[in-house]
Amino acid sequence: FSNHPVLLSAALNTAMDNVATERRAEESHRQDSANLLIFIMLLTLTILTIWLFKHRRFRFLHETGLAMIYGLLVGVILRFGVHVPRNMNNVTMNCSVNASPATLLVNVSGRFYEYTLKGEVSTVKGHDVQDDEMLRKVTFDPEVFFNILLPPIIFHAGYSLKRRHFFRNLGSILAYAFMGTVISSFVIGLVMYGCVTLMKAVGQLGGDFFFTDCLFFGAIVSATDPVTVLAIFNELKVDVDLYALMFGESVLNDAVAIVLSSSIGAYQPAGDNSHTFDATAMIKSFGVFLGVFSGSLALGVATGVMTALISFCFTKLRDFPLLETALFFLMSWSTFLLAEACEMTGVVAVLFCGMTQAHYTFNNLSPDSQDRTKQLFELLNFLAENFIFSYMGLTLFSFQSHVFNPLFIIGAFIAVFLGRAANIYPLSFLLNLGRKNKIGSNFQHVMMFAGLRGAMTFALSIRDTATYARQMMFSTTLLIVFFTVWVCGGGTTPMLSFMNCGCTAMVLQKSHAHFYVFEQVTVSDGTQHRNTKHESAWPFRIWYNFDNTYLKPLLTHSGPPLTATLPACCGPLARCLTSTQAYEHNDDSDELVLNDGNATMYGDVTVSTDASGTLTTNHKHLSASTMGITSEEALDQELAFGEHELVIRGTRLVLPMDDPPEPTVTLPPPPTSPPPFSDPFSDPFSDPFSDPRRNRL
Amino acid sequence: FSNHPVLLSAALNTAMDNVATERRAEESHRQDSANLLIFIMLLTLTILTIWLFKHRRFRFLHETGLAMIYGLLVGVILRFGVHVPRNMNNVTMNCSVNASPATLLVNVSGRFYEYTLKGEVSTVKGHDVQDDEMLRKVTFDPEVFFNILLPPIIFHAGYSLKRRHFFRNLGSILAYAFMGTVISSFVIGLVMYGCVTLMKAVGQLGGDFFFTDCLFFGAIVSATDPVTVLAIFNELKVDVDLYALMFGESVLNDAVAIVLSSSIGAYQPAGDNSHTFDATAMIKSFGVFLGVFSGSLALGVATGVMTALISFCFTKLRDFPLLETALFFLMSWSTFLLAEACEMTGVVAVLFCGMTQAHYTFNNLSPDSQDRTKQLFELLNFLAENFIFSYMGLTLFSFQSHVFNPLFIIGAFIAVFLGRAANIYPLSFLLNLGRKNKIGSNFQHVMMFAGLRGAMTFALSIRDTATYARQMMFSTTLLIVFFTVWVCGGGTTPMLSFMNCGCTAMVLQKSHAHFYVFEQVTVSDGTQHRNTKHESAWPFRIWYNFDNTYLKPLLTHSGPPLTATLPACCGPLARCLTSTQAYEHNDDSDELVLNDGNATMYGDVTVSTDASGTLTTNHKHLSASTMGITSEEALDQELAFGEHELVIRGTRLVLPMDDPPEPTVTLPPPPTSPPPFSDPFSDPFSDPFSDPRRNRL
Repeated sequence: FSNHPVLLSAALNTAMDNVATERRAEESHRQDSANLLIFIMLLTLTILTIWLFKHRRFRFLHETGLAMIYGLLVGVILRFGVHVPRNMNNVTMNCSVNASPATLLVNVSGRFYEYTLKGEVSTVKGHDVQDDEMLRKVTFDPEVFFNILLPPIIFHAGYSLKRRHFFRNLGSILAYAFMGTVISSFVIGLVMYGCVTLMKAVGQLGGDFFFTDCLFFGAIVSATDPVTVLAIFNELKVDVDLYALMFGESVLNDAVAIVLSSSIGAYQPAGDNSHTFDATAMIKSFGVFLGVFSGSLALGVATGVMTALISFCFTKLRDFPLLETALFFLMSWSTFLLAEACEMTGVVAVLFCGMTQAHYTFNNLSPDSQDRTKQLFELLNFLAENFIFSYMGLTLFSFQSHVFNPLFIIGAFIAVFLGRAANIYPLSFLLNLGRKNKIGSNFQHVMMFAGLRGAMTFALSIRDTATYARQMMFSTTLLIVFFTVWVCGGGTTPMLSFMNCGCTAMVLQKSHAHFYVFEQVTVSDGTQHRNTKHESAWPFRIWYNFDNTYLKPLLTHSGPPLTATLPACCGPLARCLTSTQAYEHNDDSDELVLNDGNATMYGDVTVSTDASGTLTTNHKHLSASTMGITSEEALDQELAFGEHELVIRGTRLVLPMDDPPEPTVTLPPPPTSPPPFSDPFSDPFSDPFSDPRRNRL
Repeated sequence: FSNHPVLLSAALNTAMDNVATERRAEESHRQDSANLLIFIMLLTLTILTIWLFKHRRFRFLHETGLAMIYGLLVGVILRFGVHVPRNMNNVTMNCSVNASPATLLVNVSGRFYEYTLKGEVSTVKGHDVQDDEMLRKVTFDPEVFFNILLPPIIFHAGYSLKRRHFFRNLGSILAYAFMGTVISSFVIGLVMYGCVTLMKAVGQLGGDFFFTDCLFFGAIVSATDPVTVLAIFNELKVDVDLYALMFGESVLNDAVAIVLSSSIGAYQPAGDNSHTFDATAMIKSFGVFLGVFSGSLALGVATGVMTALISFCFTKLRDFPLLETALFFLMSWSTFLLAEACEMTGVVAVLFCGMTQAHYTFNNLSPDSQDRTKQLFELLNFLAENFIFSYMGLTLFSFQSHVFNPLFIIGAFIAVFLGRAANIYPLSFLLNLGRKNKIGSNFQHVMMFAGLRGAMTFALSIRDTATYARQMMFSTTLLIVFFTVWVCGGGTTPMLSFMNCGCTAMVLQKSHAHFYVFEQVTVSDGTQHRNTKHESAWPFRIWYNFDNTYLKPLLTHSGPPLTATLPACCGPLARCLTSTQAYEHNDDSDELVLNDGNATMYGDVTVSTDASGTLTTNHKHLSASTMGITSEEALDQELAFGEHELVIRGTRLVLPMDDPPEPTVTLPPPPTSPPPFSDPFSDPFSDPFSDPRRNRL
């Protein structure tokens, strides 16, 4: 009897007046407006204070921490300052309700009123649930966080990911995000189970708390927050690799944690309330995890590719930036909805959709739309993020069923610390065995310390606060978020400078290191020798070549035309799939445009590859390339200097090698029937030695 | 017992499983996502087709009409194509419910489930209300239109209003919008009352239909739609005055209609169900109308001014466009919420807030934020507008309680036609008595014909569809909107060219006319002599002077510094209120920037005052000014060439007149202690004869 309304015919005592109902609806609407207004005012106040902080270069408190403080203050005022007169009238009725359906029809004197299920109300306090009407009114439906506030934040993270550094460290990021999060969840889960057992022994536990609840808690507090990391690291200009590791981890982290927690939820009902260990249920959970994650990933990528195709085919759309932006926005949003409708995870789909959009669609947009989309998602992200954090502050006082248990809280803090340590240190050790560019111990300490918990943890924990266990989790999670954002967030700056002030020095060193690829660079603290040649896992290399040779030309207007990259036999097909714009060699690299965009907004500088420096290296390197350089190094080169990939590719085509040095993928032979504009021999810009810009050096 | 939850303890038959509830909530969420996805897909389709239309320059169907057609198609598919299996289980219970409270707590086996009132369900079909679950799911809460979709549309209209032409025709616009709408509502109400009486006589009426219902119907269908008018007229490049009249009327129209309809609602309950004429209730309604309208207006203006003040004081906010844009957005939104919380009309407040923001705050924003805010509201407007129109199409088939009554529909079409005629022709005649620049009969015909009904009419009619009368109104309103958008909207282009092709020719004539202010210009059709010197009502002139002398310098960084405009005695006060930036004479006139912005978006050209032409006139005129020109003409001049107002004002200060020619306001005397940068005698740019740009001519 899924979700059909149950008809509740009621014998009436008094006839309801139509007007009175209308009045009450109006009154309710008025109050909703007033409550929302409180949050808008909070946000306004936060913005003004943020500005003051930015203006005075005050850095110890991040804007999200600030939003939380304001939220706390308002929460205190609402809790203790505002007294709403109690005028209850509890109409207690005897009727037989079979179930709690999603929709309820109440028959009042022949009129049918429709009621929708809002959720279960805490029964701990019995009749007191209606007490603080005002506080209850301020409480949002938890699904609002999941369906309205998180998607723009996550999409923005994916859209603004610095893909060059991200892809260079992809292996390590995936290790931290997947294995690390799973390890962390289990460690936290086990520690908490010990803690709960102890609490049971001393009689401190007021309700059920199963092992799956512990694991669930582990999953939700293992997600580190990309937002806070992004903001702090951006302002401090830390090492790009550290930045990429932290940001990449925390973005994927969220995706892993959300799917992991829902898989644990899927494990629970199978255990028919015994909540004991069950191997088949465990495997089933794991299957759900993999299925949901890969399904959401595929869906997000598919929508992104579809948007790229649409904007690729409808080239004249570029003349109408408004339509283009609207289309982009709608397609990205539909990813979320589609995933939710297919019982996938919308947030994960949106993350990968954002990354795909940035990689392909962004290149097809008009410059105006590129700005518009970036600014739009930046604004949405900013508003959503600050809203969540100020709500977090508010909820500490406005939430009605807090369960603060000192033992549990202490246990949770220890567990979170241990879980993070079990994620970072062992994995870093293992990764360093394979990495040529080692992750230094100071980097590991920073990653350990700066694992802040934020919006995702909050959203996951507020989603379900029906049971005693979940309420205790929610209260504890709130404290963990407060602590990490204020203490760890505020302490990151001193921490970074304490860690040998390595970071700013390292940035400089590294940025030079980029240009001398084969040199061994000694980092300022003198303890490490780091080779900056990037490790790139072979599956990634295959993908990169495939992407650059087929996908980019097929989906975007940038990159080499398909006619140049496809083998000769596919000539006619390639010509009909290649747009005329591709021949024009769109030189605005997406990578740099995106980075620059961020730079102007947040004062994010990191390492900017300035034109002359890049060209110098390219030149050097290309001379080496003619002497028989391996393709792996050429790939590094392309990753580092994305905007010049065409030139490099041109060189490769100029000098046909009889032994293609790629280990797995064979280089396509030079096209036998070159199209008019892509002939590398006739195009002066593709010959590195006759390039006028090159001659400048 | 306002809106407190009623506790409904139910004796339970079976124990509800926790998991089953969760499953059902998930299922419901999945369906909601799928339904929203339908609309997103509709919008995407609309955008792609709009692009195709724009690309092929197909103009007979406007994009909103297109969105409606797609909505219709999807509605037909949902209605007849999708079959949802019926698996009802109507649990009928006997319980005594006193009322229909906003929140209902249902006690199911010790668990409390919270239900919120969604609204009354139509009782006409009895138990069949649950039939078409799918269709019901697609139906949005009508308040969504009012609280989410309308505000951005109306704000955008206010924000993008071309204030120069608007203020020049302010008197006429106010007459059409206020008097015209009231006349139209009453005419339509009377005609409909006749129609309803006739229907009663022939037994065609299936329910109650009171005179107040007729008046209500008159009020909701009297609002013409700014969106459609804006789009069509923009593309056709019609006469600027006609454009200003139509657009200004339809923007204010909406505000008047919404307040008028709620006033009629306030009249109703006073008549204790007899619905007869009652003079005191009538006066009360009128008082409500005036109070709500002026209150909302004041509130909107107040928030706008506050935003201007904040952005004026926090000048360093300009360095952070993101913060600035967020602040702007939040303040504008809070206007709406504040008005709703104060039981005013949010939509009206937002309209005037938009106008104030455009007039003051816009000047204080950084150029980056100016672009961002414009683009943001443009996008929101675009999405909201197309969403409403496609929903309109959908609702023709998905709405469950349509009442199509042929007699009523025919009567309504006649009434709408008569009402519009009673608005335009008599008022134009009266206005022409006072106007120097007459409203030609061809203009009147165009205004008559292009009075399309759109989003506001729809939102007002869908808001309450509980009674038979309201359902019939809703169905009829839908048909009226369809007819006007498709037939009148599509026919506007041929209509304009049929009306003597005067419009494009007139545009050219008029644009020249601007530069020869005192000449009589003969319009191409040869029948009218029009003097382009604008009528400006004296209250408006007072306000304009006050605004320019005190408000603009106080609230914005553009315009002359306060120290130059305030009398000498206020010197110290003026100096402390004037920012350093004001002295720099910010020359980017808001007026032109806004216009240019629109021009690039919509291909809106209208009359652009090209630089050389403007300067010529200015030059001529300033020579005249030295010979004792009246201030009224100077005001015209300033209105027409806003960007040069500083130069003109400089001239006025250069030549102290012993007899200030303003009829009502005295010109402030030249400041005795001029600040360093605003001294008109030392600033070469304020002297028209030494201006290097001037010497070019």
